[in-house]
Amino acid sequence: MEEKRLKLVLLASLLLNLYYSCSIFWTTNTSPQPGWSREASAEAEAAAAIPCSTHGRVFLDSPVVDGAPTCECNTCYVGADCSELSPNCSADVGSGDPVFLEPYWQKHAASSAVLVSGWHRMSYKATGDNYISVELEKHIRLLHAAVGNAVTDDMFIVFGTGSTQLINALVRALSPDNTSSSSPARVVASIPFYPEYELQTDFFDSREYEWEEGAASDFANASNGNFIEFVTSPNNPDSLLRRSVLGGSSVIYDHCYYWPHYTAIPAPADGDVMLFSNSKISGHASSRFGWALIKDKRVYERATKYIELNSMGVSRDSQLRILKVMKAMLAEMKGEEGVFEFGYATMRERWRRLSSLVSSSNLFSLQRLSPQYCTYFRKIRDPSPAYGWLKCEMEQHRDCEAFLRSEGVITRGGAIFHSDSRYTRLSLIKTQDDFELLMLKMEALINKETSHTSF
Amino acid sequence: MEEKRLKLVLLASLLLNLYYSCSIFWTTNTSPQPGWSREASAEAEAAAAIPCSTHGRVFLDSPVVDGAPTCECNTCYVGADCSELSPNCSADVGSGDPVFLEPYWQKHAASSAVLVSGWHRMSYKATGDNYISVELEKHIRLLHAAVGNAVTDDMFIVFGTGSTQLINALVRALSPDNTSSSSPARVVASIPFYPEYELQTDFFDSREYEWEEGAASDFANASNGNFIEFVTSPNNPDSLLRRSVLGGSSVIYDHCYYWPHYTAIPAPADGDVMLFSNSKISGHASSRFGWALIKDKRVYERATKYIELNSMGVSRDSQLRILKVMKAMLAEMKGEEGVFEFGYATMRERWRRLSSLVSSSNLFSLQRLSPQYCTYFRKIRDPSPAYGWLKCEMEQHRDCEAFLRSEGVITRGGAIFHSDSRYTRLSLIKTQDDFELLMLKMEALINKETSHTSF
Repeated sequence: MEEKRLKLVLLASLLLNLYYSCSIFWTTNTSPQPGWSREASAEAEAAAAIPCSTHGRVFLDSPVVDGAPTCECNTCYVGADCSELSPNCSADVGSGDPVFLEPYWQKHAASSAVLVSGWHRMSYKATGDNYISVELEKHIRLLHAAVGNAVTDDMFIVFGTGSTQLINALVRALSPDNTSSSSPARVVASIPFYPEYELQTDFFDSREYEWEEGAASDFANASNGNFIEFVTSPNNPDSLLRRSVLGGSSVIYDHCYYWPHYTAIPAPADGDVMLFSNSKISGHASSRFGWALIKDKRVYERATKYIELNSMGVSRDSQLRILKVMKAMLAEMKGEEGVFEFGYATMRERWRRLSSLVSSSNLFSLQRLSPQYCTYFRKIRDPSPAYGWLKCEMEQHRDCEAFLRSEGVITRGGAIFHSDSRYTRLSLIKTQDDFELLMLKMEALINKETSHTSF
Repeated sequence: MEEKRLKLVLLASLLLNLYYSCSIFWTTNTSPQPGWSREASAEAEAAAAIPCSTHGRVFLDSPVVDGAPTCECNTCYVGADCSELSPNCSADVGSGDPVFLEPYWQKHAASSAVLVSGWHRMSYKATGDNYISVELEKHIRLLHAAVGNAVTDDMFIVFGTGSTQLINALVRALSPDNTSSSSPARVVASIPFYPEYELQTDFFDSREYEWEEGAASDFANASNGNFIEFVTSPNNPDSLLRRSVLGGSSVIYDHCYYWPHYTAIPAPADGDVMLFSNSKISGHASSRFGWALIKDKRVYERATKYIELNSMGVSRDSQLRILKVMKAMLAEMKGEEGVFEFGYATMRERWRRLSSLVSSSNLFSLQRLSPQYCTYFRKIRDPSPAYGWLKCEMEQHRDCEAFLRSEGVITRGGAIFHSDSRYTRLSLIKTQDDFELLMLKMEALINKETSHTSF
């Protein structure tokens, strides 16, 4: 009897073991063991914890020297932990590199991180048509609705590897088909304008379109009206809100800066073709992600075809990361921890300090910007532009960029934007270190010039 | 005396408090608190653990229905957990979607995951010139050295958003400058060829180059020799190793499939312009990452300029992920757990089964492939091509793609590759489910046709 009971118990035990083994086999056949993400987590936290003073950081793919990743320092900071300020180093406010938002994401570390598994979405296929993530598209529309800066109802959406990729995609999409007998589209913009429009239109030469030298307004009375007009609002480099000059049917509204960090939102933009760049929203320029909202189906299909042939869509890794970032932004929307609240506060303070310094001498002037009512903040808000469009007022400083360069400030000269070389662009969206160095140099040169004048 | 001692201790304690407070402030000023990655880890592991049978999976950006992410199922599998096989569903072996490698990465979950922080590399700048990750470039060269499939010494490298983006970039780079008076470059390939070459050359029309209809060999005796020749080796669709037909100075060698999963490596490729796609190496087609190795500095500079203007480089998120994946592949190189060992074993078995089935009837034939010595595996190895280039041998099956479609097998017809419609391409690099469905359908139709013939 005893033996029998033992055998029964043994059988039950063996059956249970068999069940467990099968369960483990079938779940681990596709599902890795719990804890598989620990190594990646630890690696990321270790990199983040490497001390680089407050002037640098280590990333997972930072250059490795003697087996260890090295700190990547802000401009002019050097040393193993980026703590030494290089003497006689020029402040660099040339690039529109939106790293002013880095501290925001460091503060929101938990909600903005994403762990990408080795088998995450390997296929070419995305969840939506044209290699688009359905979830990301949904969140982009939510973001526009929350901010109120663009009409998205009845608008198609096309993703791009940065708004950069969409510039030529949209020019081609709006141009006559190369099999038609129409004359090429004539591509124009108002001065000063973002040089990429012309650089791309020239480099990616085609029979379908041609860049027209001069300003858009030169063509206001042109009888032959096959124009594609770029309207950037707020404008890069001068941050002014703009409208179409030609009023034609093919206008590309570049609204990359039409977000509350940089400008009041008087009303939702509602052009037929609108371009946006995530770089200038969350600051993740490196992800190379932007989008266009398009009304006309044929234009949408041509733009989509471009993206398909050019790159088979946008990196799904970028799409995943930006989805996480968008969810994090939406979760804090209109609260104290909101990204636009942070961005506006930062940019407003920088503009206040810069314009105060500039107005303290007659060497320079900046673009005039006034407080304006914003439907996002629901109040009248101060200017907080991404760029200072600085004018050198003195006769001897006809080449403003060269003058500033000789005084240790790197900027982007007016000629790059097809404007007068008396103007130069100061990027105000880089790190706090870059801004402080700019102020230091500007103060020094204003003091120097002021003391020269007083003798 | 006692009071004095107490005060000293208190002072020491207060100083220590001050020191700790400062330390915490300065480290957390930029470094988030340890444990910040836990939320992202948990989220990823939770998604991975959602049961989708062995025929599907949940990703972090899978469509959300009623607040929960839904399983993404393999073709023909349906149901909440993808466990039901749809009756009368066609096997789809059209796309060259390299998901056969998904199980490999699921097995190597720990070493291939990457946790991307919210502030990871936000800047436009990369660690190398032209938006290139220095670490990733280093690992690509290591990979080529480890596999022995390409000479990289003295070769420049350009990254692309997939090899896709580099196709037109290289055509432009090899074409005469649009300001020169040279006639346009004439772009050719041998039949059958990958249709993207022609589709892109036509769509991105330019005065600098023009697609020539016909086969490359048609131009062997052309006196006007400004040709750009695409040579794909192994070829897509027929997997054969190929050489240049024209022997000109502007040959683009597309070596996307020149890896041990798919072919023997007789020797390192050493063309002046060579194209590679990470999609076909690690299987991460979604990351959109490829590269070109270029000998000539001018060609390199023109290709680099293209990528800069087209998209300001390749997504740094993709570059980070692919760096992790490459490190994981290199760590297992030439071991039992190696990706090429896995890939070869999988593809060889699929080819063996398919060719065995095909040779069991006279309905079809496949391209002839022989065992060949491989310098990577250091042995004679069996064929394991990415594609079956199937020929319908029966007179009544002149349109092979249509015939197979009517029998429930979706393929890519020969006409797409500018070849005879008697041929059609079977993709062998999709999931195991896709391959099993293919075999099921092929067996059924062979049996059906065989029983018809025997009456």
